[in-house]
Amino acid sequence: MVNFGVEFVKEFAIFLYKSGIMRFGDYTLASGKKSPYYVDLRQVPGHPHEFRQMIKHLRGMIAKDGFADSIASVPTGGTIIAAALAVESVMPLVYVRAKPKEYGTSRRVEGVIRKGSRAVMVDDVATTGGSVADAIAALSDEGIAVSDAYVIVDRLEGASERLAEMGTRLHSVLDVRKIAQILGAEGLVEPGILEKFG
Amino acid sequence: MVNFGVEFVKEFAIFLYKSGIMRFGDYTLASGKKSPYYVDLRQVPGHPHEFRQMIKHLRGMIAKDGFADSIASVPTGGTIIAAALAVESVMPLVYVRAKPKEYGTSRRVEGVIRKGSRAVMVDDVATTGGSVADAIAALSDEGIAVSDAYVIVDRLEGASERLAEMGTRLHSVLDVRKIAQILGAEGLVEPGILEKFG
Repeated sequence: MVNFGVEFVKEFAIFLYKSGIMRFGDYTLASGKKSPYYVDLRQVPGHPHEFRQMIKHLRGMIAKDGFADSIASVPTGGTIIAAALAVESVMPLVYVRAKPKEYGTSRRVEGVIRKGSRAVMVDDVATTGGSVADAIAALSDEGIAVSDAYVIVDRLEGASERLAEMGTRLHSVLDVRKIAQILGAEGLVEPGILEKFG
Repeated sequence: MVNFGVEFVKEFAIFLYKSGIMRFGDYTLASGKKSPYYVDLRQVPGHPHEFRQMIKHLRGMIAKDGFADSIASVPTGGTIIAAALAVESVMPLVYVRAKPKEYGTSRRVEGVIRKGSRAVMVDDVATTGGSVADAIAALSDEGIAVSDAYVIVDRLEGASERLAEMGTRLHSVLDVRKIAQILGAEGLVEPGILEKFG
């Protein structure tokens, strides 16, 4: 068995740091929680070659892990990745709104819903997994099963455990410890940088 | 000069109708205004082959019309199209939020901002052009010029005129009169269907 995409993963971690997409310091998240780093994956599509490589890598991970017939996402970071993945892999896209719109043909899940289909969920970052878990529940209500979810960066704050309870495996291109480890080995950041703050 | 993509445009109009993405009847829009039809382009990515053809057609239109170095969009319908277009054409994506988020590195425009760049704006549907005009203004504040905007369907409710005032040309794959005309010629709807309602 080859060690799939290991070189890409290392290069991508270095890119995230050098491009300023991932920064270390004292940050306050939307939840009010303190964090020793900030990662803004919405900037990746601004780097077209890295964005394309990331999409191709994700496509390879999904193909390797199992069978799915559609791609599901949540707005907005996840939708960009999912849309690019859908067009690259010629797979249908379904996406879940944060809340139903109040006009027109209102519904929670957008796209063509095929009962009994198996979707992979895609998002940019996993934190506690709340929004992804909520989206998986909405898809389940429509008869769409999600056995695997994919994120670019797992912040390791409980998402994997939360999704496991629903029977969904969480896969990530990188997690925050792995990024710190790669950057430390490259001499770009101090070893133990994650423990330095907050 | 060849009549660019005319066969695709006709097939796509028929697809929109047959798939139920465009429907005729009595509809009330988000604005409260009555409309003789409803078009929900968020469903297109649920049809992977048509979605891919649409993206390739749009890519061809953009390449034909002039020079741009990046793709800009507004959430959410526009973002899906723009993300797919960005990965297909290996061009950077910038997108404009409806309002700035209140945490992290707050800003209106997401992505890598390169002052002096020329973006094409992409959205799913043009109505009055309000949200696109607002996004173009936000991009202009960041030093990004938008001389051309592309939508899949132009509802012909003033967007073209509004954008022209800002120096932006509006291009559309289809407009509502053209769709009605194609469907009428195919015997799928009554001629004059747009005048039948409201």
